[in-house]
Amino acid sequence: MYKPRLFAPGPVEVPPQVLEAMARPTIHHRTPEFKELFLRVREKLAELCCVPGEDVLILAGSGTSAFEAGFLASVPKGSKILGINAGKFGERWVKLARTFGYGVTDLQFDWGKVAEPAMVRQALEQNPDISVVMTTHSETSTGALHDVQALARAIREVRPEALILVDCVTSLSATEVRPKEWGLDGVFSGSQKGLMLPPGLGFAWLSERAWAQQDLSPSFYLDLRKERKSQVKGETAYTPAVNLIYGLEASLDMLLNEGIEQVWQRRAKFNEAIMAAGKAVGCKPYAKRPSPAVAALYAPEGIAAPDIVKGFTKRGMRIAGGQDHAKAVMFRPSALGYADAFDVISIAAALEASLRDLGQAIAQGSAVVAAMQVLEG
Amino acid sequence: MYKPRLFAPGPVEVPPQVLEAMARPTIHHRTPEFKELFLRVREKLAELCCVPGEDVLILAGSGTSAFEAGFLASVPKGSKILGINAGKFGERWVKLARTFGYGVTDLQFDWGKVAEPAMVRQALEQNPDISVVMTTHSETSTGALHDVQALARAIREVRPEALILVDCVTSLSATEVRPKEWGLDGVFSGSQKGLMLPPGLGFAWLSERAWAQQDLSPSFYLDLRKERKSQVKGETAYTPAVNLIYGLEASLDMLLNEGIEQVWQRRAKFNEAIMAAGKAVGCKPYAKRPSPAVAALYAPEGIAAPDIVKGFTKRGMRIAGGQDHAKAVMFRPSALGYADAFDVISIAAALEASLRDLGQAIAQGSAVVAAMQVLEG
Repeated sequence: MYKPRLFAPGPVEVPPQVLEAMARPTIHHRTPEFKELFLRVREKLAELCCVPGEDVLILAGSGTSAFEAGFLASVPKGSKILGINAGKFGERWVKLARTFGYGVTDLQFDWGKVAEPAMVRQALEQNPDISVVMTTHSETSTGALHDVQALARAIREVRPEALILVDCVTSLSATEVRPKEWGLDGVFSGSQKGLMLPPGLGFAWLSERAWAQQDLSPSFYLDLRKERKSQVKGETAYTPAVNLIYGLEASLDMLLNEGIEQVWQRRAKFNEAIMAAGKAVGCKPYAKRPSPAVAALYAPEGIAAPDIVKGFTKRGMRIAGGQDHAKAVMFRPSALGYADAFDVISIAAALEASLRDLGQAIAQGSAVVAAMQVLEG
Repeated sequence: MYKPRLFAPGPVEVPPQVLEAMARPTIHHRTPEFKELFLRVREKLAELCCVPGEDVLILAGSGTSAFEAGFLASVPKGSKILGINAGKFGERWVKLARTFGYGVTDLQFDWGKVAEPAMVRQALEQNPDISVVMTTHSETSTGALHDVQALARAIREVRPEALILVDCVTSLSATEVRPKEWGLDGVFSGSQKGLMLPPGLGFAWLSERAWAQQDLSPSFYLDLRKERKSQVKGETAYTPAVNLIYGLEASLDMLLNEGIEQVWQRRAKFNEAIMAAGKAVGCKPYAKRPSPAVAALYAPEGIAAPDIVKGFTKRGMRIAGGQDHAKAVMFRPSALGYADAFDVISIAAALEASLRDLGQAIAQGSAVVAAMQVLEG
């Protein structure tokens, strides 16, 4: 018998406090009670997003719905876009923009790599008509973290007024994101990642520069401008996912109580510990610049990554495998959700055991000890 | 002390079984466990929608997101549309179509009225280029129920190949909806109504005629065709709202176990009983053809409807008031959710007490007895 444990880079383990909050009876959303709750939750969410007092909008939908809403609310028709594409999600935003008829320069990188500021600068210099840059922060499919602060600085040097839209789906509350200090224009996330909720909510913040744009493509359900008008008053344009909002408050209380910088540090350490455990048993890092949201690891030579995933599954642990062409070679455990140091040690222990199952000669405790050294260091 | 009770036409009281199911730990949506759950839930949902074996698609979003997704997946660019507009929601779909650049003939009716088949036939005869008709079934803002079966028959006589898209947000599982037998092309709903869930899921069914359309407007998050490709395999295009899907199964089990026709009959009787209670104390029906989803009632002469709503609120009951210009004169209790005959009696009792508060001379038990006569009849 193993307890079921969810160690994927989203969805993640949800704290029992959050599940309990979500089980409260649904209240009507057009009431003073909901208004009060919603305004309070939005205030806490803005604090978590490091934009205190600003509008972070909450949608009933996934992280993708939030990106789409932010895109349609800020990118003028006919804009030329630079899409930084270093994995599955970078690719998704390129597709999204093309779906709505925008011209996109697809700046592709091999999986595991990240865009360097110089490359982005060059792309902008070569394409003087580009006015919008889209990128992932933590590219979940490869476990790589873009240095969004440095990228934004480089973009501003070449194109001061460009819109910079950033997929922070797995980075938000996993690592530092400072939308205003970094000069970003759009930050988007979803509930089932660092916020430790079940899926079903999307979050979107836009800069004043983004809100000032005009001549936009049409949107209706995902009309962020309409949402903003309602949400500043504690209302929503369409029916909100009330019970998930109960859960959101419970999770925000936990994270803000711990302190957002402490949460970043803790999660960075946890991920570093998993990476160290991997290294100790022959699993090299997949990403050049690893994201604290997920430990993307190569399987040791001669081992199929899906067999490692199965080894975890056999022990009750659900981790992510590789996607697309990385499926055979890569696996992705993560302690992004409701996880503590003992969970990290358990991941290391399961990794050891899974590799031993597959015939690897691994000394008892090698991964676990490596993880503990990081955790206690 | 009063218990809090939610008697609005959505959101509604959620059964404790559903809340309990939603509190289960979130599982990863890319697993055989989720796939099995999702296929099973979709099968049950199709049964509830009277389209067994067909694709009813589940979205993370509201009922509006489902309508938009169905609209964009079926209405060719440049189509001319007839929007039957007999209230707030009919009006919403006219706005939606115009937002996306479609030409709409807005067939307006006074609130409380319904479109007669002859009027729709005439509108189509006068506008030979119209190829799409949109309507609400139960128009929640007025409490009126369109005879969608008769409307569809009239539409088919004049324009056999027209697409007929129907907002069934509050009618689904409140009253008979037979998408195929009636020849409809799109049926859309949301979770927080007759399905007795918290808000956060949208449901969409399209006919083969609708799926066969081409040259559509772009969509990305709300791309129903992409969803269909995934959902037939038990997957989703974007992250699904997993915990709400747990709740959905619990609620479908309850409704299917009771029997869908029995549910329709029960809810019709409950609503009739509330209407009878209203009549007994001087509250006339607002709608010419009342929907079983909600009892839209006029306040008695000289009484402001918001004061009646307040009388319910004082007693722990949340009912809906009137919207827009009906606010001063109309109120809308509903037993659409998890409700039994004793809840209906309680609504009648609260109505009596609220009116007595406002100086109406009402015999003790007059509304309650009227409700009981219907319930036991």
